[in-house]
Amino acid sequence: MSTYAAPLHDMLFAMKEVGGLDAIAAQPGREDLSADLVEAILEEAAKFAAGQVDPINAPGDKVGARWHVGHTVTAAPGYGPVYQAFCETGWHAMPARTELGGQGLPTLVSTAVAEMWKSCSLAFSLCQMLTQGAVEAIAHHASEEIKATYLPKMVAGTWTGTMNLTEPQAGSDLAAVRSKAVPEGDHYRVSGTKIFITWGEHDLAENIIHLVLARLPDAPEGVKGISLFLCPKFLVNADGSLGARNDLACTSIEHKLGIHGSPTAVMSFGDGPGAIGYLIGQPHQGLACMFTMMNHARLNVGLEGLGVSERAYQHARAYALERVQGRTLVAGSRSIIGHPDVRRMLMDMKARVEAMRALAYYTAGQLDRAASHEDASVRAPCQSRVELLTPVVKGWCTEQAQRVTWLGVQVHGGMGFIEETGAALYLRDARITTIYEGTTGIQANDLVGRKLCREGGHTLDALLAELRTDATRMVAEGRASGTDDLGHSLLQGVQALDGATRHLLATYAAQPAAVHAGAVPFLLLTGHVVAGWLLVRLAEAAAAQLAAGAADADFLRAKLTTARHYMAHVLSECAGLQAVVQTGAETTLGLTDAQF
Amino acid sequence: MSTYAAPLHDMLFAMKEVGGLDAIAAQPGREDLSADLVEAILEEAAKFAAGQVDPINAPGDKVGARWHVGHTVTAAPGYGPVYQAFCETGWHAMPARTELGGQGLPTLVSTAVAEMWKSCSLAFSLCQMLTQGAVEAIAHHASEEIKATYLPKMVAGTWTGTMNLTEPQAGSDLAAVRSKAVPEGDHYRVSGTKIFITWGEHDLAENIIHLVLARLPDAPEGVKGISLFLCPKFLVNADGSLGARNDLACTSIEHKLGIHGSPTAVMSFGDGPGAIGYLIGQPHQGLACMFTMMNHARLNVGLEGLGVSERAYQHARAYALERVQGRTLVAGSRSIIGHPDVRRMLMDMKARVEAMRALAYYTAGQLDRAASHEDASVRAPCQSRVELLTPVVKGWCTEQAQRVTWLGVQVHGGMGFIEETGAALYLRDARITTIYEGTTGIQANDLVGRKLCREGGHTLDALLAELRTDATRMVAEGRASGTDDLGHSLLQGVQALDGATRHLLATYAAQPAAVHAGAVPFLLLTGHVVAGWLLVRLAEAAAAQLAAGAADADFLRAKLTTARHYMAHVLSECAGLQAVVQTGAETTLGLTDAQF
Repeated sequence: MSTYAAPLHDMLFAMKEVGGLDAIAAQPGREDLSADLVEAILEEAAKFAAGQVDPINAPGDKVGARWHVGHTVTAAPGYGPVYQAFCETGWHAMPARTELGGQGLPTLVSTAVAEMWKSCSLAFSLCQMLTQGAVEAIAHHASEEIKATYLPKMVAGTWTGTMNLTEPQAGSDLAAVRSKAVPEGDHYRVSGTKIFITWGEHDLAENIIHLVLARLPDAPEGVKGISLFLCPKFLVNADGSLGARNDLACTSIEHKLGIHGSPTAVMSFGDGPGAIGYLIGQPHQGLACMFTMMNHARLNVGLEGLGVSERAYQHARAYALERVQGRTLVAGSRSIIGHPDVRRMLMDMKARVEAMRALAYYTAGQLDRAASHEDASVRAPCQSRVELLTPVVKGWCTEQAQRVTWLGVQVHGGMGFIEETGAALYLRDARITTIYEGTTGIQANDLVGRKLCREGGHTLDALLAELRTDATRMVAEGRASGTDDLGHSLLQGVQALDGATRHLLATYAAQPAAVHAGAVPFLLLTGHVVAGWLLVRLAEAAAAQLAAGAADADFLRAKLTTARHYMAHVLSECAGLQAVVQTGAETTLGLTDAQF
Repeated sequence: MSTYAAPLHDMLFAMKEVGGLDAIAAQPGREDLSADLVEAILEEAAKFAAGQVDPINAPGDKVGARWHVGHTVTAAPGYGPVYQAFCETGWHAMPARTELGGQGLPTLVSTAVAEMWKSCSLAFSLCQMLTQGAVEAIAHHASEEIKATYLPKMVAGTWTGTMNLTEPQAGSDLAAVRSKAVPEGDHYRVSGTKIFITWGEHDLAENIIHLVLARLPDAPEGVKGISLFLCPKFLVNADGSLGARNDLACTSIEHKLGIHGSPTAVMSFGDGPGAIGYLIGQPHQGLACMFTMMNHARLNVGLEGLGVSERAYQHARAYALERVQGRTLVAGSRSIIGHPDVRRMLMDMKARVEAMRALAYYTAGQLDRAASHEDASVRAPCQSRVELLTPVVKGWCTEQAQRVTWLGVQVHGGMGFIEETGAALYLRDARITTIYEGTTGIQANDLVGRKLCREGGHTLDALLAELRTDATRMVAEGRASGTDDLGHSLLQGVQALDGATRHLLATYAAQPAAVHAGAVPFLLLTGHVVAGWLLVRLAEAAAAQLAAGAADADFLRAKLTTARHYMAHVLSECAGLQAVVQTGAETTLGLTDAQF
């Protein structure tokens, strides 16, 4: 087993050079946020992650959360004390706003910290993530009374939160939600069955606050008839103490491929008189409230792709540096990292991990600008860009994580297939990330539909113009520092993305099915190019620092090599992806159902 | 759960149109082999596969083989009766030569039959595969006495066989084998520890015949000092009855990601006086004997990639045709197969499965020609082509299987992550196939080293010339039937492979590490192009049959669409792969170990 070491140098470099940390720290109200403080926070988080969270991951996977007759769920071994310490030391509350009891740090900083939890244990990290999403939804949409009753304990982690969307007959199609809510005095009686409820039941916290989508008696059909209700596991008395058990129960948990430490509950609401629930937001406006959680969750699942990939990379690297086997071809390397193909796999993992980090941190930085830049004319385009990139962060990072965690197993050879080695755990955990919070297909449909074609491509065009300007500048100015090759490669990627974009915009009105047939390849192409742009910017910064005589020359030179590797091995796929987008739909839609 | 239906129509079409079934049936000594007989064999095998083998797969995965104190292993539930029926009905013996008690059928036919076992249960099928490999090694290299004692029972499946290569310190590096064999009268005393021994211990058969690599006392170092020994679990008396327990034991079995029904044993030889073993072949020539097994096994593992992919495709297709969810965009499709992205995933799976089958069957057909064509000037190039394609069948098919089984999970959405759905089983089982019998990296090194550069590229050049001729002809002749587009696409693939080949040949002497850094992308490129060629040939045959007014027009038209889909979605990756081979090595080898 390898041990986790947070890649602090890489993280800080990406936060500064593409996340815009300095500019965010210079925003009004951020006077207390210095680079030193950020570094100190990251160092403390790294200690907690490596010392507390990483060690519970493999044992938690092996045993998993356990369901008992009587509808209780025991958390995986070791989770209890670590969760308690996580709350007591303030890490649980950290990402929340100051007025809610959190640290009020920029999203960029809490993103880097969250990456560490996700690296060390996806299963464990999901509990906080779901609670945080529920906190956001309540903070934005609930009454003052509900906020006062629930938020302080949820932010602190004393109570946790869930998101109850999916029903057996309604997976991603929320229009088909059937759960009901009937008014009764100041509250409602909620009934229905929900599945795939992450951390829906467990014994880590005193109470669990379920946010539940259901229909009021007078609700119109479809997604415009869904309302959001808060149903606590234990009802809360006026003095804040816990009262009676609500009429809801976890009737089973799923037996899954991965994230065994995260209980995935089947929740039954209203087997008796109906679960008492409180309306959040306006009647029939539940979807809007839920989107507050979902956008947060989508960026966070993208970050899971990064986190689990970083961990799989560290695990494979440790093995490749230690395991001696056969005669190596790379001078100076005695272990299997000296075999060119093992080196290729590790470089591929490293390049994709750094590309994911650049994309996730960039988007987090844009979110901070969108939220609190003093100039509204800056905030608006940043917000549009975040909306454009949300499905890309989610879809692209999680797809890259499939390859990275797969390679992590492959580097181990036969040992990779043995569970005790630990490499397969990351592959199994990563497998959910392209599915939950909307599959890659759903992200891609959002990207080509709502985020591209329905707004005429303005937001992507603005981004493409920025990429083209940067690439052109690098070609011109890079000759001196020898980085013009990066500009050339980037320009090719930009052209491929631009071509595919024109094709989709021209095709959408007449052939929507053809556009959606190319949606996932388009999402991958977008991710390849935008992340490539950010890696090139990191390389440009590294070249400048090298020219200025910076001390960490090995680190900076590696940034240049890694960017070039990405160009040669990943960005080289762009022409193929463009071809699939532009010419692939005919055969995708070419067979009848019976011909499959 | 879906049920398996062997794709007999597809199988027979590929056997005839690219496997060369008619020509093989016309070989001398094959007078009894008619198309009707082949079809009848396949139909019977399909019944046994679907009725007996498929149903034990999921329960066998859930419980797995179990090791007990006392060094016994209980096979997974249901395996016992099915194995017995498998032997009694002659399916176990079927692939062997007539003189050994088998059916003496062409490899092409036994390949199609084996595909079915692999589709229905990789774990179960491994027992026969290992035994068959041991039978081949014994038949080629052992004394008449040993052959007479062991082969009849092994062919019948009454006794099973294993391959004992790997040791804890020697994974793929057989030069590091340390197990010892000391002469004692007419036999040897063997001692050492072997790991990853597939079906190394179980209760399905009366005896287990271990083929073990070990060193004689006077052995030179390295791979030239390894000899092969036969060590039976129970010693065999002169009358063929079973005698004393030999000094060998299964000290544990592995806890693996997949193939739970296949016990992967740690074998300890000679904890007492040493296991009695009999030398197979000449002293120090064990590697050559083992290669007889390994080449057989490599083609078979490639076939596993096909088999598990076909099954994953059938499983996903059944779900996509049944599950109703959301508003579909494809006219006439009410279930999720009407969502363009789900359709894209299924088309991708279908196209890759058919491409794998074409490649595996083509190679099996070449093996038959190499073995028994009447003309030696035909046999020799066929043998060279089989040797060239063996690492491609193994490496490329198993890599495609990763994507296909992954998509199989993705098509199921959230249900795919739940073990009871069964889709994840195929992903977990498939994961071993790029590792055992030599990782993809090892296959690729064999391809670019021994099979390409060290022989100056003659065999691949001959193949490329054939592809180019076919492509050029199709461009010229295909205009009438509207299939010239397939010729154009193929030509592009051939050019990419040709360019990459020239690069490797020119680079090998001066920069072997750079060549091996591009080995896996080159193997993928080779597989893409050669399998694409065969799909195009299938399409060409389909077009001709359509023009002749064949009855199964829907099936034949689907062959054309599938080939075109492969061209647009898979062959379009070739230019990117060529770029990686030609320009990717510099950064792959660009960092020091410390910079990772």
